[in-house]
Amino acid sequence: MEGKVLGRQSFALGRPPAVLGEGSVVGEKEGAGPLGNCFDLVSTDAWFGEKSWEKAESAMLRRAFHLACHKAGVSSSQIQLLFAGDLLNQCVSSAFAVRESAIPYFGLYGACSTMAESLALAAMCLDGGFGSTACAMTSSHFCSAERQFRFPLNYGGQRCPTAQWTVTGAGAVILRDQGPGPYVTHVTVGHVVDAGITDAGNMGAAMAPAAFESLSAHFSDTGRTPGDYDAILTGDLGLVGRDILTDLFRREGTELGPGYDDCGAMIFDGAAQDTHAGGSGCGCAASVLCGMVLPRMRAGKWNRVLFCATGALMSSTTSLQGESIPGICHAVCLDMDRGC
Amino acid sequence: MEGKVLGRQSFALGRPPAVLGEGSVVGEKEGAGPLGNCFDLVSTDAWFGEKSWEKAESAMLRRAFHLACHKAGVSSSQIQLLFAGDLLNQCVSSAFAVRESAIPYFGLYGACSTMAESLALAAMCLDGGFGSTACAMTSSHFCSAERQFRFPLNYGGQRCPTAQWTVTGAGAVILRDQGPGPYVTHVTVGHVVDAGITDAGNMGAAMAPAAFESLSAHFSDTGRTPGDYDAILTGDLGLVGRDILTDLFRREGTELGPGYDDCGAMIFDGAAQDTHAGGSGCGCAASVLCGMVLPRMRAGKWNRVLFCATGALMSSTTSLQGESIPGICHAVCLDMDRGC
Repeated sequence: MEGKVLGRQSFALGRPPAVLGEGSVVGEKEGAGPLGNCFDLVSTDAWFGEKSWEKAESAMLRRAFHLACHKAGVSSSQIQLLFAGDLLNQCVSSAFAVRESAIPYFGLYGACSTMAESLALAAMCLDGGFGSTACAMTSSHFCSAERQFRFPLNYGGQRCPTAQWTVTGAGAVILRDQGPGPYVTHVTVGHVVDAGITDAGNMGAAMAPAAFESLSAHFSDTGRTPGDYDAILTGDLGLVGRDILTDLFRREGTELGPGYDDCGAMIFDGAAQDTHAGGSGCGCAASVLCGMVLPRMRAGKWNRVLFCATGALMSSTTSLQGESIPGICHAVCLDMDRGC
Repeated sequence: MEGKVLGRQSFALGRPPAVLGEGSVVGEKEGAGPLGNCFDLVSTDAWFGEKSWEKAESAMLRRAFHLACHKAGVSSSQIQLLFAGDLLNQCVSSAFAVRESAIPYFGLYGACSTMAESLALAAMCLDGGFGSTACAMTSSHFCSAERQFRFPLNYGGQRCPTAQWTVTGAGAVILRDQGPGPYVTHVTVGHVVDAGITDAGNMGAAMAPAAFESLSAHFSDTGRTPGDYDAILTGDLGLVGRDILTDLFRREGTELGPGYDDCGAMIFDGAAQDTHAGGSGCGCAASVLCGMVLPRMRAGKWNRVLFCATGALMSSTTSLQGESIPGICHAVCLDMDRGC
């Protein structure tokens, strides 16, 4: 069997690949948050044994990868395709994380949508017969992201109320063409959506329109409604973006309902942890997916989840040149029922 | 039919997708080079009607995309999946190029290997049944790359003899599940290879070991030899890297033969154009593929070509932190004979 085209942006997997295992690694602050005890590994500092934050991020991602392999019961040499990317310039966290692994590697750049993008492509390639085992993974690190995208940390810049806190975290998922669930049954591939937001301190507002477009496409392409899902989770819209997305759907007469939440809103206790509008970064959706969502599905608490990671595709240069911030959102349906 | 796994890194496409059309756009210097009259469009300046080099690069890529659509006889709304990436931080050339297009978009980061990476993934997804029409594209721009990776242009830094000249160029390929050739029949997915080179002024040396690994894997996985190809073209090893690759194979007793060349060595006349070790950048392999290779195949001059784009996966930050330069090479077999 092969993939089936559903409408303009969605595909149903012919033989939905199974999530065999996943690994999640986070920093100290994430470990102290509401989901702290979900993660496989919580670091006690930001360094992960390395001398720079960029190297630390790479080491953290490598740790998540090895944890995922271990939990999936596969050796890294069995992985036939690896999809990874991150926020750092030239995606160096990912490339350096797998430098010694000799695994066929496709580098991605989807900003904070990378966990869904990598999961979608890994699932599509396995479904197409291109191997039987693949890995999808991503990371972000507060310190490496802040100094690259915003200000040197030592500068101590004031954060605006709509600002989000980049999650120090990584997630890695091992997919197999056969196995027990959860399964990747559908993907909705996002397109670039630019609603004209220029405030780099308000990523939620910049990405919410992309989430609205992709979720709308998903519902329209598959004929499903929000009520068909036990949970709908956006990646890192945060508190501001989550409200905007809810409002955008409400205007169309659709309630996302109590099953809807955002990983960026879930990972921190905003009031106690001073994280303003919530978490962000590739590692936000990735660590919540691997630490909380997939285990909860396996435990029978959720049967069908729509995982929608959102990314903002600007750079410091485009912002300095006065450009608005394009967003993207890829949605992946995870289901305990393989449906075939 | 579906993809077939060949050895550790290679796949045969079950129903090889066809190249329906391609577009190539280059700058003035590339237009004045040995392949100048191959390209669809040669700009008379570096600006492409824009006010910054980053916006110029994006405009150039958009131009290549529309040319490819036009020549393939498809409208952009018929394209079901678009794979693109570039060298700029956060791959903004690609994301901004398709901001208004509403095409389902997978952003990639493979550095200068992106033309082969995007082509491979587009072919694999079409073969898997995920749509019937896809686009693969990439770009680079001398001015935007120099100031991001090396020095401000106005600084007028001296270039070392092993330095390469980033090509101002873009290429876009439209693939379709059916149609006349050339066809994408095989892909060999590269892994990250780091031979310990730390000289960011010698990209050819940093990437040649990755090309050696991927080409060796391709020959071993497929049972083919260099003699089975009318042409084997690496992406942008340049003059230095081309010689290193030839030597690496010679040491193993394999002659790459007269069919082997490098797009970076072909695109400039080094002596007359002061380009030292030759061309580089994502746009080098992309513009040569779209401007010269694919038309030459359609004209019956070449029947089977192995296109091997090579990328260096470092960033300015990793180099400043003393890291060596990891490379990657993806190989795509283009064949006038679909073989099925």
